[in-house]
Amino acid sequence: MAAAGSTRDAARTRRTLLDAAVRAVLAHGATVSLEAVAREAGVSKGGLLHHFPSKDALFTGLVDDLLDQFTAAVEAQLDPHDDRPGRLARAYVRAIFADLEPADSAENTREHTTLMAALGHLPQVLARAQEDGRRWKAAFAADGLHPQRSTLVIRAADGTATASLYEGRLEPGELTETRDLLLALTEETGPLWEGLPRAEPG
Amino acid sequence: MAAAGSTRDAARTRRTLLDAAVRAVLAHGATVSLEAVAREAGVSKGGLLHHFPSKDALFTGLVDDLLDQFTAAVEAQLDPHDDRPGRLARAYVRAIFADLEPADSAENTREHTTLMAALGHLPQVLARAQEDGRRWKAAFAADGLHPQRSTLVIRAADGTATASLYEGRLEPGELTETRDLLLALTEETGPLWEGLPRAEPG
Repeated sequence: MAAAGSTRDAARTRRTLLDAAVRAVLAHGATVSLEAVAREAGVSKGGLLHHFPSKDALFTGLVDDLLDQFTAAVEAQLDPHDDRPGRLARAYVRAIFADLEPADSAENTREHTTLMAALGHLPQVLARAQEDGRRWKAAFAADGLHPQRSTLVIRAADGTATASLYEGRLEPGELTETRDLLLALTEETGPLWEGLPRAEPG
Repeated sequence: MAAAGSTRDAARTRRTLLDAAVRAVLAHGATVSLEAVAREAGVSKGGLLHHFPSKDALFTGLVDDLLDQFTAAVEAQLDPHDDRPGRLARAYVRAIFADLEPADSAENTREHTTLMAALGHLPQVLARAQEDGRRWKAAFAADGLHPQRSTLVIRAADGTATASLYEGRLEPGELTETRDLLLALTEETGPLWEGLPRAEPG
């Protein structure tokens, strides 16, 4: 019981430290000191070093945590009754758009993007993000859609999130239309550009 | 002649100040002082204030400049021999992907995104970015493609740029495939999800 309790405590402290690191990097960038992070978290520098022995370890932990949170958000959107091709792409689209609905969505996007912009040039952080990218690529390759289709749907979902960085919260009607279009595109499986030209409207 | 010369000098000083402001915001965030920007530019604070009377004016000038540079990059990609529907969408795609080709492309994306993340929450900056967004929307509405098609192509191009923020420089073969797919999608004009289901390959 004592061991389980101290594991819980350790997990809680780690969470506190990561949250403090996020705030510190957002305010001061990647040049922030470990002392400043410890102060922000209300722990001693020794306490911080016990969990994260270096700045590299802290920043890698922070980015791992961001990437894991996103993976968990997509997994939470997987529909257990959906076993058709495109199941993962649909969950990905729903996760991104759920994040864009709240009034403070532009703030969330800004936070994530600022963290990646501040830390992404560090070799260990870049390596984690690339590893995560390869994992997603492999998962989408097994999702049953033509690669053109997955790529387009995923990149368009990502791009909608980026747009909120420039334009603030996007108009709800526009968000719904884009989400529904992306979901509809996952309901077919073939390539996207071998289709016959369609007659022009009007 | 003297007047033309001093206009040129003023434009040159403005350029120096904006470049210094970019470097200062990248290093210190939106809390950077006008003194620090003036120092970075090698001018007096009075000299800076003559061109940009406040921090708001400086940051708005900086973001206007970023947005104008992007507009100019798209205009440079407009093909004078292309008068088919989707002409603007093709130029947009070519401009984004041209920016992603160089070895330092992730750095460029990081720079732009960091600036928008640092400054985009300022009301005047947000207002400019939203105005710019409306201008693009109007231009795409006149480009002759079904809105579903423009939205998807533009968002997917934007999302490809964002991916480089997470994963570093994207693999050239993957970039070419995505660009060609997006360009191909602008060669038809109709909606994207009223199409008939296609036979699955294999």
